[in-house]
Formats: sequence, C-alpha cells, structure tokens
Amino acid sequence: MRHYLGGKPLTKFEEALERLLNATKPVAHAEVVTLTEAVNRVLAETVNAPFDVPPFSRAAMDGYAVRAIDIAKACPENPVSLKLIGSVLAGEMPRCPVVEGSCVQVATGAPVPEGADCVVPFEDTERDNTTVKVLKAFPVHSNITEKGADVRQGETVLTEGTLLTPAKVGVLASLGLDRVKVYAKPKIAILPTGNEIAKPGTQLRDGQIYDINTYTVATLLKQHGCEPIAMDILPEDPKVLNSALHEVLETVDCVVFLAGSSIGERDLLPKLVSEKGTLLFHGLATRPGRPTLAAIMDDKLVINLPGFPASCLTMAYTLLVPVIRKMARLPEWQPKTVVATLTHEVHSPEGLRQFLTVRLKRRGDEFIAESAYKESGTITSLSEADGFIVIPEEVTSLEAGTMVTVTLF
Amino acid sequence: MRHYLGGKPLTKFEEALERLLNATKPVAHAEVVTLTEAVNRVLAETVNAPFDVPPFSRAAMDGYAVRAIDIAKACPENPVSLKLIGSVLAGEMPRCPVVEGSCVQVATGAPVPEGADCVVPFEDTERDNTTVKVLKAFPVHSNITEKGADVRQGETVLTEGTLLTPAKVGVLASLGLDRVKVYAKPKIAILPTGNEIAKPGTQLRDGQIYDINTYTVATLLKQHGCEPIAMDILPEDPKVLNSALHEVLETVDCVVFLAGSSIGERDLLPKLVSEKGTLLFHGLATRPGRPTLAAIMDDKLVINLPGFPASCLTMAYTLLVPVIRKMARLPEWQPKTVVATLTHEVHSPEGLRQFLTVRLKRRGDEFIAESAYKESGTITSLSEADGFIVIPEEVTSLEAGTMVTVTLF
Repeated sequence: MRHYLGGKPLTKFEEALERLLNATKPVAHAEVVTLTEAVNRVLAETVNAPFDVPPFSRAAMDGYAVRAIDIAKACPENPVSLKLIGSVLAGEMPRCPVVEGSCVQVATGAPVPEGADCVVPFEDTERDNTTVKVLKAFPVHSNITEKGADVRQGETVLTEGTLLTPAKVGVLASLGLDRVKVYAKPKIAILPTGNEIAKPGTQLRDGQIYDINTYTVATLLKQHGCEPIAMDILPEDPKVLNSALHEVLETVDCVVFLAGSSIGERDLLPKLVSEKGTLLFHGLATRPGRPTLAAIMDDKLVINLPGFPASCLTMAYTLLVPVIRKMARLPEWQPKTVVATLTHEVHSPEGLRQFLTVRLKRRGDEFIAESAYKESGTITSLSEADGFIVIPEEVTSLEAGTMVTVTLF
Repeated sequence: MRHYLGGKPLTKFEEALERLLNATKPVAHAEVVTLTEAVNRVLAETVNAPFDVPPFSRAAMDGYAVRAIDIAKACPENPVSLKLIGSVLAGEMPRCPVVEGSCVQVATGAPVPEGADCVVPFEDTERDNTTVKVLKAFPVHSNITEKGADVRQGETVLTEGTLLTPAKVGVLASLGLDRVKVYAKPKIAILPTGNEIAKPGTQLRDGQIYDINTYTVATLLKQHGCEPIAMDILPEDPKVLNSALHEVLETVDCVVFLAGSSIGERDLLPKLVSEKGTLLFHGLATRPGRPTLAAIMDDKLVINLPGFPASCLTMAYTLLVPVIRKMARLPEWQPKTVVATLTHEVHSPEGLRQFLTVRLKRRGDEFIAESAYKESGTITSLSEADGFIVIPEEVTSLEAGTMVTVTLF
C-alpha cells in the first residue's frame, strides 16, 4: 500500500535515512581541549609516543636490584649473599651502580640502577643488616619493565578518529600531553517557528502554548556530542524565515527546523527549499513523522521535524541521531533497549513504519509495555513514555502478549 | 582459600561494595539550572502543572468547528450546509462564536471558538464559497483536545528524583518553566600523591613518569554525573597529606586518593585513616585491586585506589561508579556489554575476583576477546583494552572458547 503527502508518494524510512546519511559530512574542523574536557570527544590527530614508555627501566616489584649472573645458582639450601649498597624509591634516581656481589633495594616503579639486570622480590630473600641473602635464581630481565618495553618512541599510540574514553584519556596523560586536538562538536541550529508557540519563562498569550520541541531536540543533540544553538521563535513570515535560515547556515553545520502545525507553516519550508536548495525527501512513510522534510541548502543539511512533541522527539531519535552522530564522527548509537511483553493489541497501517511510544511497567521479573500514546500533541505522551517500539511497514497488527524491543528514551 | 594484606584477611568484593554503598549518602543540595543544562540531571523538586494543559480547548485536526447537534444527521446523501463565518489559525483567538447553522474554519492547534463542540475534518466536507457542506456526523468532543485534557492544573507531572531525559525536559518546557531545581553534582576531590609522578604538560624529572590516574578517574567521574576536582600532586609527606585531606573534606562530598605504589606511601593513608577516621575495608580479595582502601572521615567517604593505571581504572569502574551514582542519585549503571569468545585459557587464583582487561576483535559476525594485560603499569594495557571480564572467586580457570561477557570501557 502506498501513502501520499500532497499528492506525492511518501519516502520509506530506510530510504530517507540512507539519503540523509549519504548527504552527511563529518565535521572537518578541530579544536584543542584539556584532557578532562577530552572525554567523549573524537581525536583529530594521530598521537605518537614522544619518548620511550617507560622512559627508564624500572622495578616491577619491591625487592633488590641485582646482577642475574651473581644469583644464577641461588637456592634455599645455597643462598647467595650480596652486599646492600643503597636503596631507590620511586621518583628517585639511583645513587650508585650495582657491581658484582652487590645489590640495591628498589621500590616498585623505581629506576633500576645501572649494572643490575634483574629484580629479586623481597619474599625470595632474607636480610641481615647490610647483607641480603638471595634464595632463588632469576633470569635476566625478571621483574623489570625495560625502557620502551611498553611503547617505543615514535610508535603510534592512538589514531585519528578514536573516541576518547577515560582509558584513552589516560593514555594521552601517560605521554605527558595536557591538551589534545579533537574534532569540534557539530553546531546545530534549532529554528522554532510558529505564532502559536511561546518561549518558556515568558507569559502565554491567548491561544498560545509553550515551545517544547526546541528543548527536547536541543538536549538530545547535547547527549549525542553536538552543540545545539537554539534560536528565538520565528514568526510565520517567509521573508523572515528565509533570512534567518540563510543567516544561520553561514555559522552552523546543520539546521533543524521546528515548524508548527498550522496550514500556512507547513508549506513555508518546502517552498523555501525548492527555490533555494535540493530536496532530499518530503513526506515520510512513518507514523508519526509524515511531514518530515530534509534538504541540502548551501551545502548543509536542513531538516524539518514534525510539530507534535512526541512525533518530533521520535523522529529526532530515529532519524536525526544517526545523522548527527556521523557528523560528530561518533560510533553508531547503541541505544539501551528492554524486551517487554505488549499488554494490548496494536494496529498499524500497512506501508507505514510505526514508532509507538510505550510506558514500561514491571511484572515480576519481566517488563510489560503499554502504549503511552494519548492524543497528538499531549505532553503526557512524553512524560509517561519510557521509549518506543518499531512496527515495520509490512506488519499491520501486534497481538497482546507479543514480545517487543523497547528503545529507551 | 583466604588471601591476606599485611597479615589481615582480604575483604570480598561484594562485601566491600555493600559497605561502601551503605556508607554512601545521596547529595542533598540542589541548584537551579536552565532547561538545556537540565538534561541528565536529577529533579530536586516535584513539579505540578501551574495551569491546565492545553490551556484552552483546541482543534486536533484541520477542519471546521461546528455544533455537533447541527450535523447529527449529516451523511453523503444528505449533507448539512453550514455558513462559514470565520477562521482561526494556531496562535490566534477566535473572533466570533459558532452559533446554530454556522461554522468556523480551524487549523490544528487553534483555539476552538465558543459554541462549537466538535471539529469536522476537511475530508468530510465540501466547500462552496461561504457554504460548508458536512458529509458525516460526529459526536460531541470529536477532534477537540479539551482544556486540561492532558494535564489538570495542580496535577503532579514529574516527581522529585526523576532523571531528566530529553522527553522530561520537554515536559518542563510545556509547563512554561525555563529553569528547574536539580540535585547538585557530587563534588569529588582527586588527590594524586607520589614523588615519582609528574603532571602532564610539565617536564619529567629523572625517575618520574606522568600522572595517568587523575585523568582516567576524573573523566570517568564526569561521565557519571559528578564534578571531579583534580588537586595538584602531593608529596609523600604525612603532614602535607593530612592537611590537604582535611582541607578538601570541608568542600567536597567524597575524596578519591590516588596513592603511588612506593612502600612508604602505601602505609600513609591507612595510618592517617586509623587515627582520624573509620576504616570500611583495607585490602580487597580482587585482582587487580588488592591495596584498595575505603574509610569514613568527617562523615565523608575517602577511597584509595591502587596505583597501576589499569588496576586503578578497573576498580574505578567496578567499585567507584556504583558509589558515585548513588551519591549523584542516578539510576544504577547499565554498562554496555558485548558477548565474546575467549581466545585463550585464563587462570585465576581461587578466592580472588579477577577483572581481566581484554581486547575485542571481530571474527565474522562474532567478537573474540583476548587478554589486554601485558604487565602491571603498562599503558598499552589501557590503550589496547576495550573492556574487562569478571572471573568470580570460585572460578580458577576459563578455557579457550568460553563465552564471556565483556563490560566495555
């Protein structure tokens, strides 16, 4: 079954997403940030080790630095006695080399004195004042982390494009870096329009409701590594919209248009786009999301999400998130999901992909999912929804008792 | 099999975590933030609707506002003709009421004029200049979202303790709120100590290596809703440590001590704690993590993580994260996991819980996991590790080919 918008067939979700992703360019500009700021960011340079790691051969255990040859025959029955000639703590430099018949006490992490090629752990020794009896033989290199054993100077440690987790940030620190070049967060302008919406914190005029979509979309963008730039609410005036759109296109990487739901508005953006840009699609074979539109203008993506808050947020999760993550060079989103039992039958029109917002409840060890959809435009569809399920185009009903995968908001 | 540290039996991981969680107090102080800042934060107040939502009865579809009684007998064969006396767009106020025999054109979201109790969609009408023929009967309330139908004034919309997702932020916006009271992020001081460690960005002295743990722990804390406060590296001087510790305890919610690995240091904190505070545990039956310590001082948690970077980070993920999330009032962490096939046999000492860092590789559609552990203190154990597997206390070996669950870093 085919569905239409303004006489034109709707675009299938997968097709729309593919067109969007093909048109998405990962951000090219980079910025320098401190290590603590670098977490969850994407490395914009390949990092090579500026020096050997460790920068000196160091003791891997507390014990005595010795010459392996001196203790080659040591055993409990025939311990080898060595003269203790010094000690080195971590952070100190050895004051004397280890020569034949001598040893130096070393703490874990301390540089191994010249001459020594092995560390004997305390538990394999006995000490009497300045004499150390070694009870066991150890081969050369034992309990020593050799200079450069971890990373050699010049070796590539992290490659460009790496997502900086706490572990990777630690790796940068180990190389002495306190700043690092990461890709800039994509700047995404959010343009709310509509005479009927008012900015939270201001007084509602008669017939107005508060703007919701700017805040759901901005915070979702923030969660996915972007910098949302929320603009003031624009009136439904083609000239104003046109100049606002062209102005922001100069400074951002992508524009998300939040058009209202009135008749006039619905035509404004398609008109603007067909005159000045290239339409990717207008009209999605989804429920909700039918009026969704995407285009390229000035070589940048312009996306228009539907006006009803639950519709807008659902489209933002399903269509916008993959796009902005590609833009931000982040790995594909792995949403949190919960498997639950559907409590009631659900119908879905053939040929449309339905995203149904649901509420989750515990029943014993299981989860049950019930529709959170009340009516278009209700905020309780949002406040009470824990996530959504996807009903494919070819499925026209799900029976009560069906196991469904809920993608969590 | 029992294991010991300094002659005292080690504390089992579960027992240590329980003691820590029992001693953890969720933050009590709140702060006011803007809506965009509020995402991922925890609501510190219960929010009731300050007005009915929607604040007026509004059209749920584009169509004509009519009196249901006027069209009660309408059908395609016998359409009812009404006089079109006006129109209302979203954001406008109706200029005249609907009286018997008349109708007003309404856009979705527009206030329904007085007198009308039903909206007839365009597709069930025919229009001829100022006459609208209604082809179908609709009951009272059809296609109208009544004032307060979504939320009644005074009704509780979000309760204190709710995690603010984008959807919940949208709910706050719908109520006209532009700021909201959320719990403060727990302030966690990070105190690195050790003569052998140097701050990244500074010059290494002979025998020194760069501080890694401050950055892995700080960024992990940041990812889990806390505000890390990284202090300067402290020398191994009991007096300096004591005064630094007491000073930060006055201003933070929790202290994470990152002691070095030298002999002297290892005794400093246990000594400090036994004199001035209450020890929760010292010595964990885990590998790595044995030297981990936790105590209460000045009614606040003081935790000492082991010095080796991979050990420190593993303990931070497994022991610190549950604690700080409770402190931040965040829901329990649901780490991302991957099931993989172990490529090689792994041995583990009986009685110790082992956290083994592993590297993941794709093999066809599957993942394989191989140990990323090279040697204590190596940074490649960090740079090459994708996560860790947990080997329980009673398991002494895992065969090659075992399916393991990898918790991702």
